[in-house]
Amino acid sequence: MPLPDVAGREKILRVHARKIKIAPDVDWTTIARGTPGFSGAQLASMINEAALLSTRQGRPQVDMEVLEQAKDKVMMGAERRSMIITEKEKRVTAFHEAGHALVAWMTPGADPVHKVTIIPRGRALGLTMQLPLEEKYSQDRTSLFNTLCTLLGGRIAEEIVFDEITTGAGNDIERVSDIARRMVCEWGMSADIGPITFRPANPLQGQAGQIMSEETARAIDTEVNSLIRSAYDAAKNILLEQRPVLDAMAEALLERETITRKDIEEIVRLKRQ
Amino acid sequence: MPLPDVAGREKILRVHARKIKIAPDVDWTTIARGTPGFSGAQLASMINEAALLSTRQGRPQVDMEVLEQAKDKVMMGAERRSMIITEKEKRVTAFHEAGHALVAWMTPGADPVHKVTIIPRGRALGLTMQLPLEEKYSQDRTSLFNTLCTLLGGRIAEEIVFDEITTGAGNDIERVSDIARRMVCEWGMSADIGPITFRPANPLQGQAGQIMSEETARAIDTEVNSLIRSAYDAAKNILLEQRPVLDAMAEALLERETITRKDIEEIVRLKRQ
Amino acid sequence: MPLPDVAGREKILRVHARKIKIAPDVDWTTIARGTPGFSGAQLASMINEAALLSTRQGRPQVDMEVLEQAKDKVMMGAERRSMIITEKEKRVTAFHEAGHALVAWMTPGADPVHKVTIIPRGRALGLTMQLPLEEKYSQDRTSLFNTLCTLLGGRIAEEIVFDEITTGAGNDIERVSDIARRMVCEWGMSADIGPITFRPANPLQGQAGQIMSEETARAIDTEVNSLIRSAYDAAKNILLEQRPVLDAMAEALLERETITRKDIEEIVRLKRQ
Amino acid sequence: MPLPDVAGREKILRVHARKIKIAPDVDWTTIARGTPGFSGAQLASMINEAALLSTRQGRPQVDMEVLEQAKDKVMMGAERRSMIITEKEKRVTAFHEAGHALVAWMTPGADPVHKVTIIPRGRALGLTMQLPLEEKYSQDRTSLFNTLCTLLGGRIAEEIVFDEITTGAGNDIERVSDIARRMVCEWGMSADIGPITFRPANPLQGQAGQIMSEETARAIDTEVNSLIRSAYDAAKNILLEQRPVLDAMAEALLERETITRKDIEEIVRLKRQ
Amino acid sequence: MPLPDVAGREKILRVHARKIKIAPDVDWTTIARGTPGFSGAQLASMINEAALLSTRQGRPQVDMEVLEQAKDKVMMGAERRSMIITEKEKRVTAFHEAGHALVAWMTPGADPVHKVTIIPRGRALGLTMQLPLEEKYSQDRTSLFNTLCTLLGGRIAEEIVFDEITTGAGNDIERVSDIARRMVCEWGMSADIGPITFRPANPLQGQAGQIMSEETARAIDTEVNSLIRSAYDAAKNILLEQRPVLDAMAEALLERETITRKDIEEIVRLKRQ
Amino acid sequence: MPLPDVAGREKILRVHARKIKIAPDVDWTTIARGTPGFSGAQLASMINEAALLSTRQGRPQVDMEVLEQAKDKVMMGAERRSMIITEKEKRVTAFHEAGHALVAWMTPGADPVHKVTIIPRGRALGLTMQLPLEEKYSQDRTSLFNTLCTLLGGRIAEEIVFDEITTGAGNDIERVSDIARRMVCEWGMSADIGPITFRPANPLQGQAGQIMSEETARAIDTEVNSLIRSAYDAAKNILLEQRPVLDAMAEALLERETITRKDIEEIVRLKRQ
Repeated sequence: MPLPDVAGREKILRVHARKIKIAPDVDWTTIARGTPGFSGAQLASMINEAALLSTRQGRPQVDMEVLEQAKDKVMMGAERRSMIITEKEKRVTAFHEAGHALVAWMTPGADPVHKVTIIPRGRALGLTMQLPLEEKYSQDRTSLFNTLCTLLGGRIAEEIVFDEITTGAGNDIERVSDIARRMVCEWGMSADIGPITFRPANPLQGQAGQIMSEETARAIDTEVNSLIRSAYDAAKNILLEQRPVLDAMAEALLERETITRKDIEEIVRLKRQ
Repeated sequence: MPLPDVAGREKILRVHARKIKIAPDVDWTTIARGTPGFSGAQLASMINEAALLSTRQGRPQVDMEVLEQAKDKVMMGAERRSMIITEKEKRVTAFHEAGHALVAWMTPGADPVHKVTIIPRGRALGLTMQLPLEEKYSQDRTSLFNTLCTLLGGRIAEEIVFDEITTGAGNDIERVSDIARRMVCEWGMSADIGPITFRPANPLQGQAGQIMSEETARAIDTEVNSLIRSAYDAAKNILLEQRPVLDAMAEALLERETITRKDIEEIVRLKRQ
Repeated sequence: MPLPDVAGREKILRVHARKIKIAPDVDWTTIARGTPGFSGAQLASMINEAALLSTRQGRPQVDMEVLEQAKDKVMMGAERRSMIITEKEKRVTAFHEAGHALVAWMTPGADPVHKVTIIPRGRALGLTMQLPLEEKYSQDRTSLFNTLCTLLGGRIAEEIVFDEITTGAGNDIERVSDIARRMVCEWGMSADIGPITFRPANPLQGQAGQIMSEETARAIDTEVNSLIRSAYDAAKNILLEQRPVLDAMAEALLERETITRKDIEEIVRLKRQ
Repeated sequence: MPLPDVAGREKILRVHARKIKIAPDVDWTTIARGTPGFSGAQLASMINEAALLSTRQGRPQVDMEVLEQAKDKVMMGAERRSMIITEKEKRVTAFHEAGHALVAWMTPGADPVHKVTIIPRGRALGLTMQLPLEEKYSQDRTSLFNTLCTLLGGRIAEEIVFDEITTGAGNDIERVSDIARRMVCEWGMSADIGPITFRPANPLQGQAGQIMSEETARAIDTEVNSLIRSAYDAAKNILLEQRPVLDAMAEALLERETITRKDIEEIVRLKRQ
Repeated sequence: MPLPDVAGREKILRVHARKIKIAPDVDWTTIARGTPGFSGAQLASMINEAALLSTRQGRPQVDMEVLEQAKDKVMMGAERRSMIITEKEKRVTAFHEAGHALVAWMTPGADPVHKVTIIPRGRALGLTMQLPLEEKYSQDRTSLFNTLCTLLGGRIAEEIVFDEITTGAGNDIERVSDIARRMVCEWGMSADIGPITFRPANPLQGQAGQIMSEETARAIDTEVNSLIRSAYDAAKNILLEQRPVLDAMAEALLERETITRKDIEEIVRLKRQ
Repeated sequence: MPLPDVAGREKILRVHARKIKIAPDVDWTTIARGTPGFSGAQLASMINEAALLSTRQGRPQVDMEVLEQAKDKVMMGAERRSMIITEKEKRVTAFHEAGHALVAWMTPGADPVHKVTIIPRGRALGLTMQLPLEEKYSQDRTSLFNTLCTLLGGRIAEEIVFDEITTGAGNDIERVSDIARRMVCEWGMSADIGPITFRPANPLQGQAGQIMSEETARAIDTEVNSLIRSAYDAAKNILLEQRPVLDAMAEALLERETITRKDIEEIVRLKRQ
């Protein structure tokens, strides 16, 4: 079952909203546009969450502000404000997230940054959230490459600022590896390998893998590596060139814990080289 | 159970048609000829679909037009007209499908193009449908090679026109890889490898694979690659030489959403170099 | 349970024949001799089939002619006369089967050709049937090599006559590969590899495979390949030298659909170079 | 449970013999000595078989002759005298078995040949039976090497006499491969590999295999091969040098179908070079 | 479910403490700070253990001392004082543990050593326990490298002092291997390999592994090895340079069986080079 | 559950001894010291066995002699005196066991030889039993190397004396391989490989194995081999130098079937070079 598109989402939101009291300022079309990639179940759970938060916060009706909070919770998990985090780890997290956000911001065509936070949510110490401008059904090579850059931005920022790297980037690196491997082996996006797919054997799922020579395995490794190295260099260049923006963003995060698109716009305007 | 041949299909169609009201213009022989590869179940579902569409459209009887719509639905899945697709993605899809269609059209001996559409159906943003002139029980090397060219035509058109490639061609590339591998490893169609079969091990299905040296694996890789590269070059040549036809076809698709064999004939007549 | 020998087959045939009306011309000894390799179940089913055909054809008793038809059906599957096959495919099939038959005919010591047909049966578009003169409990290297030649004769005939190859030879090639691999890896028939067996690992059947070096895998590959190439060359030589016989046989098949040993004898007598 | 030794076998035979009528010439000690390697169940089944044969042959009591027949049946399976075998295959079988027997006879320290037959038994067209002089609990390198020679003697005799090889030696070759591989990988009998064991991985039996480099795999392959080649050369030398004995033995088999140790002694005495 | 943080632990401790009699000197905040990494279940079991020990030792209430004993038991298993250990093994154990402790102590930024003991507990002959100063949610490359050094310190001390090595370090080495492999293959901490993950295939858990060339495998091996060698050299340097501290610590262990942070401070103050 | 230590064993023995009549000469402390490595179940079964033997031999009470017999039975399996073994095999066994015993005796630090026998027990034709002087919880590299030498002593003795080798050493060689592989791959005892563990994949136990390059596999093979070769050379040197002791020990075994530590001391005193 495919995800609902914007019209579908609006319809789903309105259905679930019938059960609760809604403030007059709520504009369902805006909310539908701001929730691309949400499933029907996620939309329903967002409305429920908004009703709960509204009650808990003593609001008479579900308004736009509480819907925004509910959306964040559905997208990023519950906040874990009680977690005690050392000053050092907070700083590392702030620069890590600022690294993601700054690379995304500076990459033409990347999905716009929606919000960046260093309040722990779920298993993460911080989060950078991007929201696409429009719904897309396929992705082009350039935007996949931009995703690689953005994912690597966190680790690189740690490296530049602290001359140290942490296990915290493990999940970013796994996603980078997965996307780069699919670009080469599934989507035919390496000129050297060409339009051909390769699938590792997975016996438990009845998949036999292809016959593959060591030479081909080496060519694939080389391409995947070179893709990741290019993204790494591109992201590093951005962060080195825009170091003042990076620092300002991290400081803003340490001060305010969460910054939004508008805050970033302001910082970039002031500090951009 | 083998698929019914043309006589079988006509018989099956007539059996199912007994239950519904049929317009006098319906010619079962023509329809049977136009549905090669349909199973008995698909033919039955096509008649049912036609009856439903007929009622929905307020037609007194099932006529040839509604049967054609029903056939498209069975072959390609239901239309998803509600999907909101960006202008950019629509353009990419139009050129992608035009690429498939043009390569198929220009390749002597390829199955004729029946219809091309950029109305989303099922999981696809667009479709190019070919219908064989006659039923064939085996395929020769030339027509398999033509299939490779046609499948690659979509990706290549994107590359030529937008200087960009997308994940949308992933499925085409998987089919290309599968056919090219079977040509070399199952049908003995590579002169270098010769008339010998190779099967990767698939333990869960009790298949052990052959003993195979690295040297043989390399030879197979080389042959599969060279087959795909040749098809790629052949398809690219067609699209580069016939760029005006490609552009005209894509524009026609953007304008009319669906074009048929006759439309293509017209475009080709006007624009062919 | 081993297959019955000629005496066993005659006994089995007589047991099952008790239930039906038999014409005086039926000679069970002849039939037993003509059904080597039949299992008890196949002999029983042949008698049943003969009884059915006899009734369907309005014959008063089961006679030799109807037993021959029943034998063909058991050996080769039911005829599928309703299948509509293009002229082109019929020609390809005729030359393919003539290729098998001619190589078998010209190879000293190969099992004699019993019947050749281009009437589709089961999943095959045509069939060449050989019947051994005597029952053998083991096979020598020469007769296995002859089998490789005969199996390859179909594909080679297509190549020579149409300069094209088809997927139709896929099953022949799989059998060629299987026999050649067993000659080298199971029956010790390659002088280079010597009297040693190699078995690929098959974990689901509890078979571990041997320790095997890349060098040995390469030697096995080389031997299997060279065996198939030699058989290919030998078969091609026969078909090139006896092209008039090949053409005449194919034409006879296109005209009469089925030809027997006697027809081939006649053609060979007239056309042999 | 280990196999009974000679004292154990005599005890078991006497227990089972209580149930039947025994001729006064029966000497249980002799029979126990002549049945090394028999399990308790096999000894019981031998007594039962003897009782049955005795009745069938109208003998008043179970005597030494009928016990010998019963022993053969238990060791080699029932005779299949009804099998119709071509003269050609009979000749090949006679020379194959004579090859086994002659190599065993001429190899100092090999277990003495007890009986050779070309009457089909079970799945075999012929059999050469050796009986050890004494029971041994371990085997030395020399006697394993002799077993390799004896097993290869059948295939080599076919090669020398008919200049042809058959699938009939498949089982001999599998045993040769198995013994040679165990000599190298399990019993440390190759000087080059040394006293170290190697076990291929067998996941279904929870065995992981060792880490093993390609270099080691190659060394193992080389040793196994060289062992088999040496045995092959040794056996071939015997058969070439003693060709008149081979011919005489095969002719005796064709004439008498079964020959015993005494017959072979006589032939060797007359024909040995 | 994530582990509780310091506030969570204090809450859990207080809940479980309600059931028992607590001495006035017990300070839950201190205890919560001293039990980082404890799960809720471990905290509960620590309180129970303290109650049991208190009764067994005839104490009127659970006091700080008995809580410390309970904490040790939960962290390290029950003491096995009855085990008879040879003088030789006791000495080896003392130097092994002193090796761990000294390397940890001398490595800036490593977690402080809490306690070292040569009283056998569970399956271990001795233990060195470190307690982090603060809770960390991710680990940086430097502290992982320090862990490698500390783990190797035990084996190296044996080597330096006794010129002998034992199986006792097997578990340390397994942890070293695991951490070094994850640094290279999971956390992207090798500059040569870069930010990319590699996962060995694990069919039973449905994980297919990546396509990987021999070249990449070699690069990974080289990096993992070089990481371990560097940690080995760093740890060895510390132990060679601070040999008097190592000797004094081992002697203190042999005399007192358990030494704490304060004892180590004293030894280091006196003996440090 | 860990094995009981000496105090534990004495306690267990006394508990089980309550049920039987014990001679005044029985000293449980001595027995507990002489049964290192015995589990509780083995100790219980030793007492039961002693009671049975005592009754069978008509002794009024369980005395030290009968306890010694019971201990041998539990450690080595029941004697199989009825087995008929050829003189040749007896000689080979005597030298094989003398080889084990002599190498163990001459290796400083090896566990002392307790008893050597050529009376078959369980599946073995002979046994050499060593008893450690003290209980050890870990093993050092030297004592593992000594175990390799002792295990190889049997095979080498056969080689030196008979210039022949047998399958009888298969089990020794398997243990040698296993220990040498663990020294290199599990206990980090090869200087070339270093302190790193390697584990072959074992899918059924959910173990994935590590990524490993061919180069590393080769290095491991080389180290394991060189370890075994060194042990082989060391053991061979001992046996060649002390050939008179070897001969005397084997002759003593052939004469007396079982020799004890004292007998060996005597032989060594007389014959040592």
